[in-house]
Amino acid sequence: MRTYEVISTDDHVVEPADVWESRAPASLRDRVPKIVATDDGDFWEIDGRRRPISGLSAMAGRKAEDFTAKAARFADMRPGCYDAVARLEDMDTDGVDAEILFGTLPGPAGNTFAMIGEKDSELGAFCVRAYNDWLAEDFCATDPERLIPQAILPLWDAEAAAAELVRAVELGHRGALFPGLPHAIGLPAIGDAYWTPVFAAAEECGVPLASHIGGSLARQVASELIGAEAGGDHLAAETVVATAPLSNYGALANIIFSGVLDSHPGLTIVSVESGIGWIPYFLERLDHTWERHRFWTGAEIPRRPSEYFRDNMVATFIVDDAGIAARDSIGVANIMWEVDYPHSDTTFPHSRKILEEHFGHLPPEERHAIVAGNAMRVFGLGNGQGSKGEETT
Amino acid sequence: MRTYEVISTDDHVVEPADVWESRAPASLRDRVPKIVATDDGDFWEIDGRRRPISGLSAMAGRKAEDFTAKAARFADMRPGCYDAVARLEDMDTDGVDAEILFGTLPGPAGNTFAMIGEKDSELGAFCVRAYNDWLAEDFCATDPERLIPQAILPLWDAEAAAAELVRAVELGHRGALFPGLPHAIGLPAIGDAYWTPVFAAAEECGVPLASHIGGSLARQVASELIGAEAGGDHLAAETVVATAPLSNYGALANIIFSGVLDSHPGLTIVSVESGIGWIPYFLERLDHTWERHRFWTGAEIPRRPSEYFRDNMVATFIVDDAGIAARDSIGVANIMWEVDYPHSDTTFPHSRKILEEHFGHLPPEERHAIVAGNAMRVFGLGNGQGSKGEETT
Repeated sequence: MRTYEVISTDDHVVEPADVWESRAPASLRDRVPKIVATDDGDFWEIDGRRRPISGLSAMAGRKAEDFTAKAARFADMRPGCYDAVARLEDMDTDGVDAEILFGTLPGPAGNTFAMIGEKDSELGAFCVRAYNDWLAEDFCATDPERLIPQAILPLWDAEAAAAELVRAVELGHRGALFPGLPHAIGLPAIGDAYWTPVFAAAEECGVPLASHIGGSLARQVASELIGAEAGGDHLAAETVVATAPLSNYGALANIIFSGVLDSHPGLTIVSVESGIGWIPYFLERLDHTWERHRFWTGAEIPRRPSEYFRDNMVATFIVDDAGIAARDSIGVANIMWEVDYPHSDTTFPHSRKILEEHFGHLPPEERHAIVAGNAMRVFGLGNGQGSKGEETT
Repeated sequence: MRTYEVISTDDHVVEPADVWESRAPASLRDRVPKIVATDDGDFWEIDGRRRPISGLSAMAGRKAEDFTAKAARFADMRPGCYDAVARLEDMDTDGVDAEILFGTLPGPAGNTFAMIGEKDSELGAFCVRAYNDWLAEDFCATDPERLIPQAILPLWDAEAAAAELVRAVELGHRGALFPGLPHAIGLPAIGDAYWTPVFAAAEECGVPLASHIGGSLARQVASELIGAEAGGDHLAAETVVATAPLSNYGALANIIFSGVLDSHPGLTIVSVESGIGWIPYFLERLDHTWERHRFWTGAEIPRRPSEYFRDNMVATFIVDDAGIAARDSIGVANIMWEVDYPHSDTTFPHSRKILEEHFGHLPPEERHAIVAGNAMRVFGLGNGQGSKGEETT
């Protein structure tokens, strides 16, 4: 049985050019995502529109002074972004035993293909399946104990999404992306019975659903937040970068208050890249709201909100001294460390040094829980039992 | 010279029925806000539309079990909501020496009249002036050392807004409401030169601008957040209540990154009712963003974001154990306590007991800074020197 010392719980692949074309049936081949190289960088062409393959999503190994938001080229990118053998070498350099892997083109909630699937379910379903197949059977199959895939789902059809989750787990996926505020991206609200099959499938499979930052932003908010890219200049670019993690708080609150975790007590929600230092305040505020306002609101959840967080939620962070200092108020079992390779905030290739600086003072069992044990429990890795660390809270 | 032991830094008046009608010239009398009593409660009729006078904004003295979001009647309301003598009696009961006073009908950023003023500047300007006159010369004049008014501004005309701020301060106002994300309510962005006269006037007058929660929400976001009221059911009502304070974080980040505090180093921004427990995380994240991302963003602020917070911002909170525990990471000089009378989260009439429970363990000089000294410094009350407490960080 594989043992783990350091697991990173949020990393990304940049999908190689042939993921969809090489798998497409003849009837879809003209319409699936394909790479178009231009003088301004490499772009995905999909559904008649072009979007850059990455930009800030492929900065691993660069100095901050060399970061750019411009469209990248595969040729300029660190091979670990898209090649599994190179990725494993980078993980060795960085001292990371395993990575929980999300994608790039599918978007932070798998929503790229949802927007396609709403109009053309055959094309959307193919794009989802091909991604899940490629990530599990190709990229992560290179070393399935170290590269842990997270699926995407056909969100426009909840029965199909539940079936795809079961299929993906059989392929080796250990969880799936899910939008924390689905109504904000045009899907039924989290408390709608529509989602019951997906939540039931996640419970039955024993895998978490990941609410990654950025996946919960309303279309309108997103377009305001990225005002600079959208041609406006309402917000400083630094504001968007600085506040993106914290933006997950609304989704977490609403998942708890929606009652979903009463109907699905076996469900685990991972708040990905949200940071953790704000959570003691957040739980105090949620509990206050429940205690003081549940009479006029008619709240239906029977327990204090913080209990749902402790039982059903885990949040990930990169560097977060405020959160580490307040870890007892959050729950040592509810926080997991991440590298965020190859995004601009990644700690690669200095992760072990950074761990020492920020975790060196922690009791060993707590440190192990945060950097490996909790991930083993949540994603069912190794003996799946995590460590003693998770019992300390 | 008046001394203060306990100052509440965020309280509200419910405007009596005659504030605008009694002051209106004949040419405007038909169009100014007036009360219409209906079987469903009392409403303001303004600009051809009706809105309830309060609802959850006038719950002081009620048990949580009796809270209601329905439109209230003056007859059902505690007189301290709208009558200054009764308010002072309630303050005596509650052990509060002074209150920083905001309104109700003007909205959390004074935006009710801004929406009118954009279409009809004569009517909008009258509504703003009449409110400022009434609050300072009538309500607060009952005891100007204990009732401290905060003005509203004609936001649709920055030169007029600067002039009104100067006029209001001469009347006795000690600050003004200002939307932290003005672009989100249809006004020029915070960094736009449009706002220069207002910021310069606040600096010259030595009064703060208050970014009250709710005043920074985009129209679209606001309508999504209040989905339940708007006829939808996307978010649980508890989600809206629980997350409203934290929603101020985007405005604070953007004010810092916009460079406004470099152009106006004497400006003080009060983050009203936002809570404080999330701020250590927030400052760490802002500093990280500046250190790591300023190269590609081209950030123009020359100092670490946390330095601007410490020099130019103060945040208020009601009950916030997470924030009190982390006060050294925020700055004891940067936090102020509030009662939020007569809103649903108010600590009235138990404020002194609650202070003992949540502050009893603090060193006396820190406690004094948080519950009085910082407010004396920010709003220029008493000797205006605050206390030693503000020097402890």
